[in-house]
Amino acid sequence: MIQDLWLIGIGTGSPAHVTGEGMQALRDAALILVPQKGDGKDDLAAIRHGIIAASGTGARMIAFDYPVRDPDLPYQERVAEWHDQIALRWQEALGDAAPAGPVALLVWGDPSLYDSTMRIAARLAPPPRLRVVPGITAIQALTAAHAIPLNTVNGPVQITTGRRLGRHGWPEGAETVVVMLDGACEFRHLDPEGMTIWWGAFLGMPEQILHHGTLAEASGRIIALRDAARAEHGWIMDTYMLRKAAAV
Amino acid sequence: MIQDLWLIGIGTGSPAHVTGEGMQALRDAALILVPQKGDGKDDLAAIRHGIIAASGTGARMIAFDYPVRDPDLPYQERVAEWHDQIALRWQEALGDAAPAGPVALLVWGDPSLYDSTMRIAARLAPPPRLRVVPGITAIQALTAAHAIPLNTVNGPVQITTGRRLGRHGWPEGAETVVVMLDGACEFRHLDPEGMTIWWGAFLGMPEQILHHGTLAEASGRIIALRDAARAEHGWIMDTYMLRKAAAV
Repeated sequence: MIQDLWLIGIGTGSPAHVTGEGMQALRDAALILVPQKGDGKDDLAAIRHGIIAASGTGARMIAFDYPVRDPDLPYQERVAEWHDQIALRWQEALGDAAPAGPVALLVWGDPSLYDSTMRIAARLAPPPRLRVVPGITAIQALTAAHAIPLNTVNGPVQITTGRRLGRHGWPEGAETVVVMLDGACEFRHLDPEGMTIWWGAFLGMPEQILHHGTLAEASGRIIALRDAARAEHGWIMDTYMLRKAAAV
Repeated sequence: MIQDLWLIGIGTGSPAHVTGEGMQALRDAALILVPQKGDGKDDLAAIRHGIIAASGTGARMIAFDYPVRDPDLPYQERVAEWHDQIALRWQEALGDAAPAGPVALLVWGDPSLYDSTMRIAARLAPPPRLRVVPGITAIQALTAAHAIPLNTVNGPVQITTGRRLGRHGWPEGAETVVVMLDGACEFRHLDPEGMTIWWGAFLGMPEQILHHGTLAEASGRIIALRDAARAEHGWIMDTYMLRKAAAV
């Protein structure tokens, strides 16, 4: 049983992204749940362990394995089923351990943005008291790396996923669009006329790669960079921002 | 002349929001430009000085005053003119000081999000090399304080300003909308049917105030809380998120 569950946003890969609050929360936790394998990204495990070590925490560490998603289920069902399974894995991993204090989880980026940890936590019975420590999102890491503003003066910003961009195309009336979780370079299907793209992979890490330009010119180069980097590392995390030229 | 200008995102008021990278950048800076007065918020100056002290930096501090905006100019012109003036104030404040290293500015939240510092920096001649250190935005501080996800599963998010919401109403087809820079509680003019609001002021500070509920029920209470807090403190910074009920 988990009475207090702390979700700690750790940013996008640089231990230097972690805030003072995040480091303190790691030190104040009694127990840290750490994914062992199954997310297919050993480099990410190394980064998490580096952050835990840097915090100087004396918390007990308990490992859990991610389940495998059922590819035969429809999207929303598959996600819900997977969340159920992860909540079970957390409880199994804790077993009879009755943590005498808060249980912490390190969350990539920020726990609010395209992350499931809060939805998984809501499946625990009884539901724990939740504390969320904000973290640097991939959006902030992207705009900082390119040294660009996210919005135009008083302009709106749309955040969406590759899946949605692929299905629905350019959002009606949008000026600036940030696309996350795009494993298929959906930007290639957009009308590139007047469109600029700022792309980044492994943001904040030593492996960081950046590219930007008009979508017409940069599109092919980004696809090539992305393929090469994924082949080299065995995985990739990337994000991009698109802006229509009419915008100032 | 500024060769290297570092814009350091410091989050929304808690020194614990500052990242390891932010603290290190303050220590590595040769000179820090600090607004003295004119933003009408002495509490904010105290927070900035607290962060600088906590970093242990030995950088030289130089103060500058914000100019006053010309209320007679149209919006975009007024903003452009004000940015020109601030760039001049930076240069005047530096005077003959030839910093033997990077000049740093502390930026509320994150330098990419509804902040003008990058646009002001672009007015310096010659343009400095820019480094941006990402910070916790008011959006992350809001969702963390309420312990809620920003997006629904695979859902889009729209970020906009109070000014735009007041002029254009609810963005076409939007599900989740975050409203920033709203000094006029524009949510009161929306159709509250099926709408939920999560509001927060002084996010991350000891004075933090939160409220949420259906827009129909919470609207009046938020306006009253906001008026009372502004009367008490002499200023207020707040942000809110709206979601349509159909969304899961």
